[in-house]
Amino acid sequence: MEMRLLGLLVVLLVAVVIWLTVQRSQRRRGGPVQRPVNGRVVPPPPEEIPIEDSESFDVWGFRDTQFSVNSGGEVVVEGDRYPLSGKPIPSLFPWFQKQIEVPLDVSDRRPANYGADIPPSRAAESQLAELGALLAEDRCSVDEEERLRHGHGHTQEEMYAIKFGALPRVPDVVVWPIDEEEVIALIDHAKTSDFVLIPYGGGTNVTDALRCPPDEKRIIVSVDMRRMNRILWIDEQNRMACIQAGAIGRQIIDQLADYGFTMGHEPDSVEFSTLGGWISTHASGMKKNRYGNIEDIILDVRVVSPNGVLERSGVAPREAVGVDPRRWMLGSEGGFGIITQAIVRLFPLPEVQEYGSVLFPTFEQGVGFMYDLAQTDGVPASVRLVDNQQFQFGAALKPAPSGWGRFLGKVQKAFVTKGLGFDVNKMVACTLVFEGGREEVRRQEETVYRIASKHGGYKAGPENGRRGYQLTFSIAYIRDFVMNHWVLAESFETSMAWDRILPLCEKVKARVRKEHEARGLPGKPFISCRVTQLYPTGVCVYFYMAFYYKGVERPEHVFAEMERAARSEILAAGGSLSHHHGIGKHRQQFLPEIMSPAILDWHQKTKDSIDPQNVFGGSNQGLGSSPDAKP
Amino acid sequence: MEMRLLGLLVVLLVAVVIWLTVQRSQRRRGGPVQRPVNGRVVPPPPEEIPIEDSESFDVWGFRDTQFSVNSGGEVVVEGDRYPLSGKPIPSLFPWFQKQIEVPLDVSDRRPANYGADIPPSRAAESQLAELGALLAEDRCSVDEEERLRHGHGHTQEEMYAIKFGALPRVPDVVVWPIDEEEVIALIDHAKTSDFVLIPYGGGTNVTDALRCPPDEKRIIVSVDMRRMNRILWIDEQNRMACIQAGAIGRQIIDQLADYGFTMGHEPDSVEFSTLGGWISTHASGMKKNRYGNIEDIILDVRVVSPNGVLERSGVAPREAVGVDPRRWMLGSEGGFGIITQAIVRLFPLPEVQEYGSVLFPTFEQGVGFMYDLAQTDGVPASVRLVDNQQFQFGAALKPAPSGWGRFLGKVQKAFVTKGLGFDVNKMVACTLVFEGGREEVRRQEETVYRIASKHGGYKAGPENGRRGYQLTFSIAYIRDFVMNHWVLAESFETSMAWDRILPLCEKVKARVRKEHEARGLPGKPFISCRVTQLYPTGVCVYFYMAFYYKGVERPEHVFAEMERAARSEILAAGGSLSHHHGIGKHRQQFLPEIMSPAILDWHQKTKDSIDPQNVFGGSNQGLGSSPDAKP
Repeated sequence: MEMRLLGLLVVLLVAVVIWLTVQRSQRRRGGPVQRPVNGRVVPPPPEEIPIEDSESFDVWGFRDTQFSVNSGGEVVVEGDRYPLSGKPIPSLFPWFQKQIEVPLDVSDRRPANYGADIPPSRAAESQLAELGALLAEDRCSVDEEERLRHGHGHTQEEMYAIKFGALPRVPDVVVWPIDEEEVIALIDHAKTSDFVLIPYGGGTNVTDALRCPPDEKRIIVSVDMRRMNRILWIDEQNRMACIQAGAIGRQIIDQLADYGFTMGHEPDSVEFSTLGGWISTHASGMKKNRYGNIEDIILDVRVVSPNGVLERSGVAPREAVGVDPRRWMLGSEGGFGIITQAIVRLFPLPEVQEYGSVLFPTFEQGVGFMYDLAQTDGVPASVRLVDNQQFQFGAALKPAPSGWGRFLGKVQKAFVTKGLGFDVNKMVACTLVFEGGREEVRRQEETVYRIASKHGGYKAGPENGRRGYQLTFSIAYIRDFVMNHWVLAESFETSMAWDRILPLCEKVKARVRKEHEARGLPGKPFISCRVTQLYPTGVCVYFYMAFYYKGVERPEHVFAEMERAARSEILAAGGSLSHHHGIGKHRQQFLPEIMSPAILDWHQKTKDSIDPQNVFGGSNQGLGSSPDAKP
Repeated sequence: MEMRLLGLLVVLLVAVVIWLTVQRSQRRRGGPVQRPVNGRVVPPPPEEIPIEDSESFDVWGFRDTQFSVNSGGEVVVEGDRYPLSGKPIPSLFPWFQKQIEVPLDVSDRRPANYGADIPPSRAAESQLAELGALLAEDRCSVDEEERLRHGHGHTQEEMYAIKFGALPRVPDVVVWPIDEEEVIALIDHAKTSDFVLIPYGGGTNVTDALRCPPDEKRIIVSVDMRRMNRILWIDEQNRMACIQAGAIGRQIIDQLADYGFTMGHEPDSVEFSTLGGWISTHASGMKKNRYGNIEDIILDVRVVSPNGVLERSGVAPREAVGVDPRRWMLGSEGGFGIITQAIVRLFPLPEVQEYGSVLFPTFEQGVGFMYDLAQTDGVPASVRLVDNQQFQFGAALKPAPSGWGRFLGKVQKAFVTKGLGFDVNKMVACTLVFEGGREEVRRQEETVYRIASKHGGYKAGPENGRRGYQLTFSIAYIRDFVMNHWVLAESFETSMAWDRILPLCEKVKARVRKEHEARGLPGKPFISCRVTQLYPTGVCVYFYMAFYYKGVERPEHVFAEMERAARSEILAAGGSLSHHHGIGKHRQQFLPEIMSPAILDWHQKTKDSIDPQNVFGGSNQGLGSSPDAKP
């Protein structure tokens, strides 16, 4: 009996030694080294989107997810899709009404009138028949709600209009091409028939980019690219993939992951936005520190323009060939043609993904930490610093703890406030995402926490970091919810050099408060900021602005005015017009303040050169058909 | 006595302890952390270039440095500027003549006829007077040799022509503006007087970019930007500097170093080339792995165009504002206007700079090493892999060792060939430059050497690495030297995905040999390659091509034909038209092979939009005045 036991122990010991040796040899290979594999693989098409993953038309996101008020009068996120889903969030309204100094009643819900007053389609039967001949008829629609949805993005003005007002002009037809031949045929047809084409991806822009020019008399066709959604090939050895422009972020992520890769591009909208949209808006992802912004990711772009197809014979890691279609298309916001596909850079899925968080006593100390971190070679994939209001906001979104969790929460709070001496009305938080090889991540963590402690930071653990990062995707749903409860809210962003951050944030907050008071609006505004991206030369700063609008006339216009005032303050304080949201129509009035006339003139002529007829008449960035343009 | 000694020892001990503590606390600061400093510093103008740093007009580089033959018949680099300077290089000719299988006689020197047949200036006295009124008269010249120098770059065809042939068309006037007002006045004057303006920086391009269109009848004015050479400001906290476009690389390096910074941009031509030139050619530097290519470095560019000044109200670390002058100007090769200044990103000078080198048994193994290294986070600032011919070339450039050095050399060679079993006709070398924090460099070294040994690499020490890297700057002088000894030589480069490297290099080499043989040229060609840049998605490959041309008619044209054949082979094998040299006129014929007509048409229209009169008539990339352009 003892012999058998001994034998078993020996076998176990040998097994453990073998396992440890294998682990060690894997580590000795230095992390995720890619074994060269010849040729390209062709993934299958992405799965049809199941009914449970349908998107809402009248609000942000998935249909199964909404902030709402349960029968007990508690705020809760419906469904089970997100970490936040399903649990009552008792603190949100109480906390927020303290911020804006107006009582918020969960039962005071404004009735919405979504889908009222949708302008009828101006397309004649014959025109529809012609379009239906180009594509199959089931990919050509005049359905009211489809046309409405394709006529807006997610600015507060648009979201307000579709529920409580009306959009004066929306597309007359929506089409879904399935290949480049159809796109070419569409553009040829639009030229001869004098239609307007507006490319459509996820419809998640926040710049009025999809809003139809109200005086546009030509037939407006929304070209929804999401049937062109394949990964055409993956080149595993050379770390590239060719992806159709209508592929949506979450499907790209899933499909690439099947092959062990990622693009690493993860904007807030990634569940819904498309590759073509990212290129057109000049997007930035939350993990750009590791994976780059869209201009770093895109290796080649293929475009159907009114003057022919912009295509290259091959792709190179880097070239100096005088001209490059990527440069025209990045940030072009649908004005030059339809992007059909692009070649993107890939990264192997990271060996390790870890979260982290740090509390700082003040925003200033947090910014000092960010600055010192930006000077090192240990910057993690994502680093985001929220101000005190957003820190409190994050706490207010926590589901109600019970029993032991509640006790622990109190203990932690007491430790931080009494033990560390943090002031609950000044403290801020930094959330971190680390991705990479095991050693690489360890080194980044060491760098981050060492620098954090120099700036008075307190390491608050991975769970807060994960929560803070993941909150991004569910926060997007809040805006539509509070809109029903008489609060308008929006985000706007900018970029600036390091030494501008603190004065700029203060000035913008002060300006918003001043504008709010000057208009005699109820209560106080909510204005909060966070530093979401860092560069050696500066940062991206995101603002949230909100106010109570019951009793306010045309509140969406008042909000837009105040946002423009904030933007003027930003520009005066040395911030940019946009870090990544873009211009659209929402900010085009500011372009002459930041660019000389010769730039804007050249830009219009660039538009005229490729699209003299203004087929792509979305009219973003003030680009329309100029009198000089020759068809 | 003993007490004093003891006292001294105690003092020494205390001093050592203090020093160690200071060292430790510095390390605890985590490397070169930049202390924020408010405001911008304004450096003084760079020093006047002293007479001893004059450049040659008829050959590359500094006047004090040439390869030549000393009285003893040995090849030697004159002067004392470079590590290679001053010591006889006995192996070069014997080795090279074995490569090309033609006897090379150091005394057989072809007489040059530099400066013969310089076309006279076409500018009338009145036209000169007008220009002299715009700028001071001493900054306006019709001197023959100035005009000749400003009418070419450093392609072999141009360098051959100026010494053994003639350039049919050169600028009629050379001007040196000192500020933007003069540049604006020049352009206005050129518009009204119908002059051509060709911006000039270091004159080091290798694409015929400065070669004047031979049929150009208008007065051609070369606008030498090098009097606009100041660093206008350095923003130490935000790590940016604003630099005038005519500043030359070596002065930028020196001046920024005074403040503890570097741009990190170090192309082969950095001693002479200018910031404006780097932007216009879409340049890449040898240390781009750490510092980025020019598109990563440039934050803003300011341009005087025929349609006005392209200027921005401020600079941001990153923006999405729809249009960006950088995108038009990168790689524009002088066709759109004159860049007057740019804002660049800075890095603190690295804490540590170290060299390294590795020998590999074969090129294939070296490429395998490069691939695996590119997948890690430990890529050093510079990694370059030469093939066997360049490895031998590097060895042939070694000054003759004597005594102990000679013995050691034999021992090392015996060890490598007999001990390690490397074949002298297959082995290759990789030179490395590490820059960064101490720990960062240590980590990179560990990564590099670990991966190198997996691919059969033998660590060959920092001295060979330093030597190999520094050779770059002196190698440039060789081409003009061998041209006088009946050998034409040129470099050309490309970029490609990883899996194309080996077949492409073989095919190009085979094609060159075939073309050489088909033309019945003497001996054999020299054709060699190196991998000079790596990216996750591929590499840059540089070729050297040379052949003996005594007895060959129009050898410079024969060479150019063979180079075009090599380029066709490159394109067919999946390489790009250029990684960083650019297009100029030298490669413009290939543009329709790599870009669709719609791209080229849009590009021409972009040109017409900003310069309808073709004032910037250098005619690079095939961009001239099209019939549609409206003045």
